[in-house]
Parts: sequence; structure tokens; C-alpha cells
Amino acid sequence: MEIPFATIERLATYLRCLRHLKDEKIKIISSADLATNTKTSPEQVRKDLSYFGRFGKVGTGYYVGKLAKKIEKILKKRKKWNVCIVGAGSLGSALARYGGFKDSGYNVVALFDNNPEKIGTKIGDAEIYDVKLLPEIVHEKKIDILALTVPKHALPGLKELLESSKVKGILNFVPLSLHLKTRRKAAVLDVDLAQKMYILSYLISNKEEQV
Amino acid sequence: MEIPFATIERLATYLRCLRHLKDEKIKIISSADLATNTKTSPEQVRKDLSYFGRFGKVGTGYYVGKLAKKIEKILKKRKKWNVCIVGAGSLGSALARYGGFKDSGYNVVALFDNNPEKIGTKIGDAEIYDVKLLPEIVHEKKIDILALTVPKHALPGLKELLESSKVKGILNFVPLSLHLKTRRKAAVLDVDLAQKMYILSYLISNKEEQV
Repeated sequence: MEIPFATIERLATYLRCLRHLKDEKIKIISSADLATNTKTSPEQVRKDLSYFGRFGKVGTGYYVGKLAKKIEKILKKRKKWNVCIVGAGSLGSALARYGGFKDSGYNVVALFDNNPEKIGTKIGDAEIYDVKLLPEIVHEKKIDILALTVPKHALPGLKELLESSKVKGILNFVPLSLHLKTRRKAAVLDVDLAQKMYILSYLISNKEEQV
Repeated sequence: MEIPFATIERLATYLRCLRHLKDEKIKIISSADLATNTKTSPEQVRKDLSYFGRFGKVGTGYYVGKLAKKIEKILKKRKKWNVCIVGAGSLGSALARYGGFKDSGYNVVALFDNNPEKIGTKIGDAEIYDVKLLPEIVHEKKIDILALTVPKHALPGLKELLESSKVKGILNFVPLSLHLKTRRKAAVLDVDLAQKMYILSYLISNKEEQV
């Protein structure tokens, strides 16, 4: 059965919410509360979870810890992923330091840049390598996921290196589409921070109208 | 009529896609192609757009530039928003330098931190202020949106300052829930970068199974 992409996105949102609840020592949540906290409907929550079996108890709700574990299993299937960051500028460095990755089992094991002053230095435990070594280091360090944080103008010149690096997935922070010809195509997910701004400004404008 | 939050999220995704198409000088796109590029279905694209009137022509598709403008109008209603960043660490600095905000009409006009060595310095055109001045500067510089990029442990100590600052919206990068008691509640949108990693690893695992 094909699971809609929107369901996968919402599962990741439910997981985030469940983790917060766990931090706050809340043990049970109703589908109505889970829906309110994740800006969706209780029907949608139940439908999304129904793809993967039966969860929760009628009249009781979901066990926070149990549901979080189950969703983690659905999404990840593996505990640890090795991540590299291409582009050790401000965003790349911020991602390398971002605690949320490590907490969730995504280990940044290398960064890449073309600036000779950066190459050979470290951010946390991860070394910055010459970007020309990308395919080699990806192989050597068994890197699964590549986060792309280079400036827009640097992207065309990187295409060949990216295509010959055998990563399984790319998290693309560059506001440009990636058209790669990899032998076994990598999964690509675009992250656009301005998009979040758009959603937020809609929420604000909507509130202003209601007042 | 209430527009579902998921529709708003997808509109922001369509907009991102349309902007890429514009960069590539593509003038017309079918709902099928727009759906493929944004990981949804043509029916969903048509349904989402139908909330806002009639778009496109049967058998022709959507005019890229026109549709982008229309969605921008739906989402933003205003051309310019003033943004501040609380927490001038690596993520905060990266956001201040992030080109995608300025391009979309979100101007970072101030940063805030509690580190005396940072206070008074600048990132781009934006000065870093003492976080104690947050409510005043928000008022003075007519700041609409606050991006929160402080470390987890700093959040409890910031609550009062956040509550007395009259921003309209908060983009929360801290992996914790925000429970603020503001007089007129600000819209809050959580941004979790690890969530994107979860979605990506699902896409990867799914591909691996299909091979």
C-alpha cells in the first residue's frame, strides 16, 4: 500500500509533539489533543495512524511513549545515520552544531568546503574536508545523508561531485531545484526556511482579520 | 470558510516550486506536473487552489508567474515584514545571513543576545542588542516576527521578556514547546530540522525496499 507523502510529513510532526509531551511527563494523549497540537483534525490523526495498524484505545487515547517509539520505527527503520554537510558557511556550521540531529540519531561525521582556510579545521568532532574529496570520504565514512548548504551560485559547479558521491539522501537547503543524474537516484528533500515565514505570515494575517 | 492548515502549508510549497520554474523561464505548468514536483496529487492541487477562486485553464495548465503572484497575495497580504532574531549563535547568525528571507520580503532588522562580546556588533546591516531591550526595540523598530534560536536551556529564563514583547508571530527553532501568556496571543510556528531528517530517512528506506 502506498502511504501518501503528506501522511509521512504529519507522522514526523506527531513525533515532534509526542517528544515534547514526553519531556513534560505527559503519558496519555487523546487524538483530539494530538490534532490540536499538530494543527490537524482528529479524523486525520486516526486515518494517518490506521495505515500502520491499530493504535490507542477508544475513550483512553494514545500512550505517548509507545506511540512515539512506533512512529520512530515507521520513519527510520534504522537507529543511526551518518550525515555530512557540504558548505561549511554559517548555515552549514549551524547545522553541524544543531543538537536536534544528534539527539535523533543523525551524526554529522564530516563537512566539506572549498575554502583552504577552513579545510582541516573542525566543528565539534567533525572535520572539514576539501570538497573535491567528497565521493571518497562519503564511501570511506559510510555517509548516508548529505545536507547541502552552499550558496546558490556554487551549485552548478558542484553537480558532478554530487552525482559521483553515493549518498542515499540529500537535504537541500539551497533555494534551487536539484536535478542530479545519479545512477541510483538519491532521495532529495528541499528545505526552504522562507516557506515557514510565508505560513507564519498567513497565520498572523488571519488572526488580525478575526480581531 | 476555514482553510485547512495543510492547504496553507501546501500553498507555500507550490509557491516555492513556481519560483524555481520562473527562474528556469518555464511559463506554464499542468496540475499533474505541479503535483509531481511538490509530492502531492493533481486532485489535491486543484482542491487547494479551489478555496481561492478559479485558476488555470482546462487543457493548458497554470501560468507560472500569475499563479505565484496570486499565492503570494493569499499568504502574505503585506509586502514587507520586519523580523528579529533572538539568539545570535550559529543558527541565529545563519538566519540573519540567509538570502531567502530578504528575497521574499522578510527583513532582519535586529538580533538579540546576552553575550556582552556580541552586543553592539553587527551581522550584515542588523545590530545585535542586549536581549533585555527586546520589548523596547520590538516596539521601536515595528518588528512583526521573532525567530527564536536560543539554546534549549535558555528558554525558561526568556519567557517573561518574550511575553512582554508585542510581536505578532514567533518562528520557534528551539526543540521545546512554547507556552506564552501574551495578552494578544502571538501565532507560533515550530521549525524542527530533525523532522526533515526523519522524512528523508523514510524516503530512503522506502527506496531501498523497492529495489
